[in-house]
Amino acid sequence: MKNEKPLILISNDDGVNAKGLHELVNALAGLGEIIVMAPDGPRSGASCAITSEYPIKYHEVEQKQDLTIYKCNGTPVDCMKLALFELLPRCPDLILSGINHGDNSSVNIHYSGTMGVVIEGCLKGIPSIGFSLCNHAVDADFSKMLPYVRQIVVETLKNGLPQGTCLNVNAPMADEIRGVRICRQTKGEWTNEWKQNNHPRGGKYFWLTGSYSNLEPKAEDTDQWALSNNFIAITPVQVDMTAYTFLDELKHWNLAL
Amino acid sequence: MKNEKPLILISNDDGVNAKGLHELVNALAGLGEIIVMAPDGPRSGASCAITSEYPIKYHEVEQKQDLTIYKCNGTPVDCMKLALFELLPRCPDLILSGINHGDNSSVNIHYSGTMGVVIEGCLKGIPSIGFSLCNHAVDADFSKMLPYVRQIVVETLKNGLPQGTCLNVNAPMADEIRGVRICRQTKGEWTNEWKQNNHPRGGKYFWLTGSYSNLEPKAEDTDQWALSNNFIAITPVQVDMTAYTFLDELKHWNLAL
Repeated sequence: MKNEKPLILISNDDGVNAKGLHELVNALAGLGEIIVMAPDGPRSGASCAITSEYPIKYHEVEQKQDLTIYKCNGTPVDCMKLALFELLPRCPDLILSGINHGDNSSVNIHYSGTMGVVIEGCLKGIPSIGFSLCNHAVDADFSKMLPYVRQIVVETLKNGLPQGTCLNVNAPMADEIRGVRICRQTKGEWTNEWKQNNHPRGGKYFWLTGSYSNLEPKAEDTDQWALSNNFIAITPVQVDMTAYTFLDELKHWNLAL
Repeated sequence: MKNEKPLILISNDDGVNAKGLHELVNALAGLGEIIVMAPDGPRSGASCAITSEYPIKYHEVEQKQDLTIYKCNGTPVDCMKLALFELLPRCPDLILSGINHGDNSSVNIHYSGTMGVVIEGCLKGIPSIGFSLCNHAVDADFSKMLPYVRQIVVETLKNGLPQGTCLNVNAPMADEIRGVRICRQTKGEWTNEWKQNNHPRGGKYFWLTGSYSNLEPKAEDTDQWALSNNFIAITPVQVDMTAYTFLDELKHWNLAL
C-alpha cells in the first residue's frame, strides 16, 4: 500500500464534457492515479439526489496513463456510489468534485450536485473536496484558481480530514486572487425564484431563476465576504446536521400524550 | 392577521397520491388552512434537488373547506419554491413534509426528498417539520404515530423554531409507541449499494439498493436508538453545515502560494 500512488476519484455535476472537470484533472498531474466517474450530461442542482426509479449504467470514455474516465447516466451521488462499490480496485485516498461552473457558497451548498459528490464521499469516510468557480460560463477561465486547487489537494493528501468533515472551496472571478480564507457558510436567501411564461396551447409554465441576497454582507468570517474580496473561500462542512444548541430547549416541549 | 387561521403548506416526496400525505392532512383537521403542493409522482431520494433543465407546471387537484391540493411536475424543493413565490396569498406559518413511507433518520437525511422540503422551508425562515414512518409499504399503517404528529404540530405552532433550525421526526413501526425522544443524527453507513443485472441485448445495468449499518448502535442519544426502542425520534436539524470545530486547525494549513 505504502508504495502505491494516491488514488483520486473525481466527479462533478456539469457532466463529463465540462471544461471545469478537465481543468481539475490537468491541475493534478503527477499527484496520483485519477479515475473520473461523471454524469453523462448536466446535473446542476442535483444536490444529494439518488436514482431509485430507473437502472444505472456506465461506460469507459478514455484511458491513458494515470487517468481513466467513465460516464454514467445517474446523478453525481450515483456516480460516487457506483465507482466506490462496482469499479475501483481499492478505497480512494481522496474524492474531488468540480471544478463547478458556478458559485456553491452560502445556501447553495444544499442544492449543489458538486457538493452532493463531496457529502457522499464524506459519508463514506473518505477525505472529500468540492471546487467551484463563481462563473457559470461554459468557457470560464479557471487558470487563476488552479495553483490553489493543487495546493489544497497536496495539503489534504498530507493532513487528511477529520471523520464527518469535508471541504467546500469556492474561487472568485478575479484578475488577481489575494489568497485563501477559512470561512463559515454565509446566511443568504433566494427570492423571486420563477420566470413565468404562457404556453402557446394555453396555461402557464415556470423556469427556475431567482435573486440572491446576502443577509450578512459585513461578516468578514463568511464565504461570501471572502469571495467578494477576491479571496478563495474554504468552508469546512460537516455531515452531522444535528442542531445541538436546540436539543435542551426542545426537551422542555410538551410532547407527551 | 391575528384573527386568521394558521396557514400550513404541505408537500412530500412520495407524490400527491401517497397515503402518508393524506394521513398527515387528516391528522391536522381544525388546526388551520392547509395548502398541499406535492410532486405528481414519486420523487424518493430527491434530496434538495431543483429543476433547471425543464419548465415547471402545476395544477389544482382538489378544493374543499380549509384544504386545497395542487400537484406539480418538479422536485419536492421545486414544489416549495413554486408555492411560496407563485401561489400562496401570504407567508405560511408552518411547512410540513410527509408522512414519508420510509425511514429518514441518520444519514438518510441527506438523500431524503421529504427533508429537502423541510430544509427549503427552513432556508426561507419558516418553521418546518418532516414526518417519516419506518415502513416503505404503499399501504403502511400510520395510525399509531398520528396523535404524536398532531401534538408536535400544535407545539411548533405555539413555540416556533429558531431561525435556521427545523425538525426531522421519524416514527417506529411498533404496536405500541413508548413516547418521544429528542435525538441527534446517528452515524451510519450504506454499503453494497448496487444489484447488478445483465441486459438482454448485452452490457450490465445496476439498481440502487444497499445494506445500512448503524456505526454506534449503543448510543442512547441517537435517532436510531430511539426508533429501535419504539420511541418517536425528533432530531433538530440546522441548515448551517459549517464544521466550526475544524475552523482553527484548517487555518494552520499551508495554503499560501
